[in-house]
Amino acid sequence: MLEKAYQLLEKNYDHMVKIRRYLHQHPELSFKEFETAKYIANFYKNLGVQVQTNVGGNGVVARIRCAKPGKTVALRADFDALPIQDEKDVPYKSTVPGVMHACGHDGHTATLLSVASIIFDLKDELSGEYVFIHQHAEEYVPGGAKSMIEDGCLDGVDVIFGTHLWSTEPVGQISFRTGPIMAAADRFSITINGKGGHGAYPHAAKDPIVAASQLVLNLQQIVSRFIDPIQSAVVTIGQINGGHAFNVIPDKVELTGTVRTFNEEVRNQIEQFIEKMIKGTCLTNDCTYDYHYFRGYPPVVNHKEETEFLAKCAGNVPGVTNVIECEKRMVGEDFAYYLQHVKGTFFFTGAKPVHEKDCFPHHHPKFDIDEQGMLIAAKTLFTAAAQYQNQI
Amino acid sequence: MLEKAYQLLEKNYDHMVKIRRYLHQHPELSFKEFETAKYIANFYKNLGVQVQTNVGGNGVVARIRCAKPGKTVALRADFDALPIQDEKDVPYKSTVPGVMHACGHDGHTATLLSVASIIFDLKDELSGEYVFIHQHAEEYVPGGAKSMIEDGCLDGVDVIFGTHLWSTEPVGQISFRTGPIMAAADRFSITINGKGGHGAYPHAAKDPIVAASQLVLNLQQIVSRFIDPIQSAVVTIGQINGGHAFNVIPDKVELTGTVRTFNEEVRNQIEQFIEKMIKGTCLTNDCTYDYHYFRGYPPVVNHKEETEFLAKCAGNVPGVTNVIECEKRMVGEDFAYYLQHVKGTFFFTGAKPVHEKDCFPHHHPKFDIDEQGMLIAAKTLFTAAAQYQNQI
Amino acid sequence: MLEKAYQLLEKNYDHMVKIRRYLHQHPELSFKEFETAKYIANFYKNLGVQVQTNVGGNGVVARIRCAKPGKTVALRADFDALPIQDEKDVPYKSTVPGVMHACGHDGHTATLLSVASIIFDLKDELSGEYVFIHQHAEEYVPGGAKSMIEDGCLDGVDVIFGTHLWSTEPVGQISFRTGPIMAAADRFSITINGKGGHGAYPHAAKDPIVAASQLVLNLQQIVSRFIDPIQSAVVTIGQINGGHAFNVIPDKVELTGTVRTFNEEVRNQIEQFIEKMIKGTCLTNDCTYDYHYFRGYPPVVNHKEETEFLAKCAGNVPGVTNVIECEKRMVGEDFAYYLQHVKGTFFFTGAKPVHEKDCFPHHHPKFDIDEQGMLIAAKTLFTAAAQYQNQI
Amino acid sequence: MLEKAYQLLEKNYDHMVKIRRYLHQHPELSFKEFETAKYIANFYKNLGVQVQTNVGGNGVVARIRCAKPGKTVALRADFDALPIQDEKDVPYKSTVPGVMHACGHDGHTATLLSVASIIFDLKDELSGEYVFIHQHAEEYVPGGAKSMIEDGCLDGVDVIFGTHLWSTEPVGQISFRTGPIMAAADRFSITINGKGGHGAYPHAAKDPIVAASQLVLNLQQIVSRFIDPIQSAVVTIGQINGGHAFNVIPDKVELTGTVRTFNEEVRNQIEQFIEKMIKGTCLTNDCTYDYHYFRGYPPVVNHKEETEFLAKCAGNVPGVTNVIECEKRMVGEDFAYYLQHVKGTFFFTGAKPVHEKDCFPHHHPKFDIDEQGMLIAAKTLFTAAAQYQNQI
Repeated sequence: MLEKAYQLLEKNYDHMVKIRRYLHQHPELSFKEFETAKYIANFYKNLGVQVQTNVGGNGVVARIRCAKPGKTVALRADFDALPIQDEKDVPYKSTVPGVMHACGHDGHTATLLSVASIIFDLKDELSGEYVFIHQHAEEYVPGGAKSMIEDGCLDGVDVIFGTHLWSTEPVGQISFRTGPIMAAADRFSITINGKGGHGAYPHAAKDPIVAASQLVLNLQQIVSRFIDPIQSAVVTIGQINGGHAFNVIPDKVELTGTVRTFNEEVRNQIEQFIEKMIKGTCLTNDCTYDYHYFRGYPPVVNHKEETEFLAKCAGNVPGVTNVIECEKRMVGEDFAYYLQHVKGTFFFTGAKPVHEKDCFPHHHPKFDIDEQGMLIAAKTLFTAAAQYQNQI
Repeated sequence: MLEKAYQLLEKNYDHMVKIRRYLHQHPELSFKEFETAKYIANFYKNLGVQVQTNVGGNGVVARIRCAKPGKTVALRADFDALPIQDEKDVPYKSTVPGVMHACGHDGHTATLLSVASIIFDLKDELSGEYVFIHQHAEEYVPGGAKSMIEDGCLDGVDVIFGTHLWSTEPVGQISFRTGPIMAAADRFSITINGKGGHGAYPHAAKDPIVAASQLVLNLQQIVSRFIDPIQSAVVTIGQINGGHAFNVIPDKVELTGTVRTFNEEVRNQIEQFIEKMIKGTCLTNDCTYDYHYFRGYPPVVNHKEETEFLAKCAGNVPGVTNVIECEKRMVGEDFAYYLQHVKGTFFFTGAKPVHEKDCFPHHHPKFDIDEQGMLIAAKTLFTAAAQYQNQI
Repeated sequence: MLEKAYQLLEKNYDHMVKIRRYLHQHPELSFKEFETAKYIANFYKNLGVQVQTNVGGNGVVARIRCAKPGKTVALRADFDALPIQDEKDVPYKSTVPGVMHACGHDGHTATLLSVASIIFDLKDELSGEYVFIHQHAEEYVPGGAKSMIEDGCLDGVDVIFGTHLWSTEPVGQISFRTGPIMAAADRFSITINGKGGHGAYPHAAKDPIVAASQLVLNLQQIVSRFIDPIQSAVVTIGQINGGHAFNVIPDKVELTGTVRTFNEEVRNQIEQFIEKMIKGTCLTNDCTYDYHYFRGYPPVVNHKEETEFLAKCAGNVPGVTNVIECEKRMVGEDFAYYLQHVKGTFFFTGAKPVHEKDCFPHHHPKFDIDEQGMLIAAKTLFTAAAQYQNQI
Repeated sequence: MLEKAYQLLEKNYDHMVKIRRYLHQHPELSFKEFETAKYIANFYKNLGVQVQTNVGGNGVVARIRCAKPGKTVALRADFDALPIQDEKDVPYKSTVPGVMHACGHDGHTATLLSVASIIFDLKDELSGEYVFIHQHAEEYVPGGAKSMIEDGCLDGVDVIFGTHLWSTEPVGQISFRTGPIMAAADRFSITINGKGGHGAYPHAAKDPIVAASQLVLNLQQIVSRFIDPIQSAVVTIGQINGGHAFNVIPDKVELTGTVRTFNEEVRNQIEQFIEKMIKGTCLTNDCTYDYHYFRGYPPVVNHKEETEFLAKCAGNVPGVTNVIECEKRMVGEDFAYYLQHVKGTFFFTGAKPVHEKDCFPHHHPKFDIDEQGMLIAAKTLFTAAAQYQNQI
């Protein structure tokens, strides 16, 4: 039966590409993916599958119950795009100025629709129920996953699988990892309030630029000294802004930054260490501060059995040449929320363009994928979903 | 004769106030003081004094030759205003949005015109020649003094006197100082070029925010370690700007700042120390840089004999209650250039408003002066100018 | 047969304790373990086992060939002590002032001798050959492992196992890990050469204390910014020394530190990053430097199959209650060298004293172990050694 | 009469040199100058002058009352030496190992004895009373001046003069300055208490080396940002010491340093700013601290009239070629205490060796003076003392 499915997926490949390219030409920003949601819902309606729209926002959920009883397996694809201008020179280039599928969510959607149509075709031979979670707003905190879960998308689900097409790993490679695979990605903002004054009279002012500079250096110690070196963590200041004139000491300096962690305790510690360092630095410089820490997605933590199961499945998929246990990645994903509710795993599917000159990292204005990666993703997801019925 | 002059100046006070208030209502920005220049020139024309316009730009120079032979004494007043919105609630408030005489140059001009008209009145009794230098563009580098000198305003001049009305020192106080009294005020800009990247992957970027922060701290050492502690100097960073997103390491950080010194050697040293520190900091952080150092006015260095002479003169002026040797001030003045060409001195005349609530520092949107200060300035300038004829 | 061995080991327990306590009372420093080596050699001689002394220094190697053919399995125990004053109050306290078995090597030795005697007892029933590597000088770079290997201790060896009794993990726990488990531990020394001078004249000196302080902060960035956050690494300054008088700027400051890594590329990078930062910091401060980087042991990198095999074996050992995959540890071990030559694994055996008040970390003056840990270590090593014969 | 005195001093020059060289060969450390005090007292006894010993310690005071009534003028010379090994190659080299007159106090003493003997010779022609204050322990806080004053050395004194021979200014130069001329020189010590630990586990320790390094940089801001740039001030860390092993984070780091100021308010501010910065830095790093600030001598603040008088006197002394108003010097002197009690002035007398190769700064192991400087110092002191009788 797997062989049959693979053949169907291959036959369906051109259609999958067509869908992906259509979506690529019509990207929509997070939380504004109205047309994309409609497109997905119509696909299922045309197929004759019951579909639920506006799930937790623009989310779309379709369910296919197969002939034989079995487990309920969810597969998830996200479908929002990014505020980036498409700079590729291809026929399927984005038609929306300043908006682009620069992260492959168009491919995820095409892949999942393809899998869904094959499962629909084979539903008389398959066991269990399949839930196709088309999630909006992965790119923008608070994301769509949380509200879709609250709106019931995981009801009755036994296991969930998801994948990310990856433009810097070769087609044929599946990367998995038990435990944390993607980071918690938080944001913080700090204002150092000094006292402005003439640049020629520093003693009459309280210089927030010097205070902020000290703080930036002090923050380096969080990772170098305060956190267990076994734990991976990042504290980055992305913005520092203060002052309006070369000869005037400003009232304040504003900083923003991001924290990446794989562990809730480390995450909590860093939030507190930052504040302690701000406090100490402000005391040193006779300044005051505002500090806000905003939690982004939690880390994506894959379940052990499901991950090993997925890796085993992937090893038998035609076209998969390399199944590797990868390192953690410091980027975030709201797939994290699904794994807090049900068992499952999130993995990476290689989709690196054939020619090196076409290879760009995710979020790059020239980002593109080798669409063959979608076929492998589809086969792997199908295999995991179907085989999971035989899992104890 | 001094008594007579003082009486004339007192009689003329109301007119001086009228002039000052008219100018206060009609401020013009540096290098754009066309109407003010016309106003001054007309004053002299109406008086019957020969006047030269467009001296080195918008500068106006009038000369009065007196009956008896003697020395040529120059008196200088500046007449440009600042890009500041007048926030005072007075009838003579600025009528030009966003432009204001927030430094007292209106008062300087009214004072000098008043002195000129009294010298004109007394020209048959006085010796020597008097040059009234009405200078444009003191507030904005390269200033008006340099080009007016190049255009001949100091030709034949033996000595020059100038004063600044000072809103934070009481009426009746004259502050003098031999040697450096006002600082060289320079500007610099620095760009630290790193390599941008995802905030989660610092090792793949070269973080210019951390480099810039190190630099700001390193620069503190110029004054604390590298410069002779006997020398007064200031290095201030007034602006630091880098980054567009909390989770992206930016390509570069831009900084601007000011350097204040009283000594050409120290000035040169600091210009070089800054570059050395940028170089070392960039090497540490694998960054590159752009550095530009722009020289503003040199320090105002008063001549000893002329300063002591002025102080003695001031001590005998009615209304002057306090002649003090003041400390150097870290602010700049292009009067510096005149003193590089001829002997002379620059001093401060107290003009602090009577009520503490009306007292604001120079360049403040609510800045104002006690106009009685103008009368004292006028008497002191007249005294110094007239008495200088008796100097050996 | 395993059962029989476990019973023999249990019967032998009191003797093993006696050996351990004897060694505990007679500790010898690294490279000076002459008596301990003799003691070990005598043990084998008394047993009737062929023993080789002065292997690569004070090392002792014994080999037992069993009745049936099979693989050659090496087991290693180290036997040097530390320059620490024993502060415990026990009958078997160190009798050598300032020298102490504060790391459990006495226990390792007693354990391995016990295993050897049981293998000798069972040699007619067992297959293969067993090599007992008693290594001197683990505590002091360059260590004894390297020279023992060069001297042939691994000749013909198929696999090696080693364990460390661990005073902070409970008896019954075996901790294993595939891949890097212990860090490369390097040392570096830096001298910042400035120019001494009177503390009142900083501008006439070149202050190496300020330069060194900058350097310490800059070095924090190596871990926080320059190294892939997925990689665990530590850069610690352990010593900073400069100056002889409160009012004199010294000529130089001396620093020493340690670097911990698990990966040769990261290790190389850090060695170079440190120098780059010293260079940049010296340029900033007009100082010069000396920098020496001394490589300690490489990381201990366990082989996958042997590690999984050991974990499986450990799971069946009576008394073992908990086999866990542990995190990497930032401390070093010259067991690393063995694993560069043959397959094998290094694991931790819990030996935490029963009462919390007796629990101290390794290298502490009150360090002690629960000797029951030795019995479990012995059983586990025996099991792995014997079962390995059945491995494919 | 001045001419006569100058001739007597010149005739006495060889004897003065003999005294200076004797003292140079027999230096004694501060508070241990027993023999030197005896030598001085004997000089006066031999002269037939009443002398008081053990004044406030090892101090010696002689008084000569002249024939005519007049003012009481004190002249002061210090006589202690330094813990420095004499490295000069001259016949009068120090005979005491590790002790040396490396600051010219031997010359001060010889000068004052010479002046005293001439005043004694001329006592019938002179007016007033002369007090010769031979002060012990200038080099070591709390110094001898304070206790000598408490012991009455200034009783009845109207004015005091003192000079320092200066090895880097040419013979013939007298340097004076009204107001602050030498700095307050204070000492401080700081201990940063962290929490020691293994260098591989920074998160389990609290690193005092990083904290101390931050502190050293933060302290730079006191002079660069917190103190009015017009005020001269120095904060120098002279010692930083922490750690005993390259791979162990120490418990604490100890720092000592010096503060130089010319103004009591700035001095107080700096004492407090240092503590604020320690507090903030410790908060940032979760450390604690000990901080002690020890006041040394206050600034030497010369009185205006007496200084101008001295400068005028010096201008007429034969051999004086150059009387200049000098800058403040950041070094300290306990002459400061005398000037807190009576009017007077402290000045510098050039004594630079003729050959550049013999020129070394004060406190250098090869320090020496051109003894001709003593003659000029003697003439200048005599002139000021004698002429002061004619002052109103």
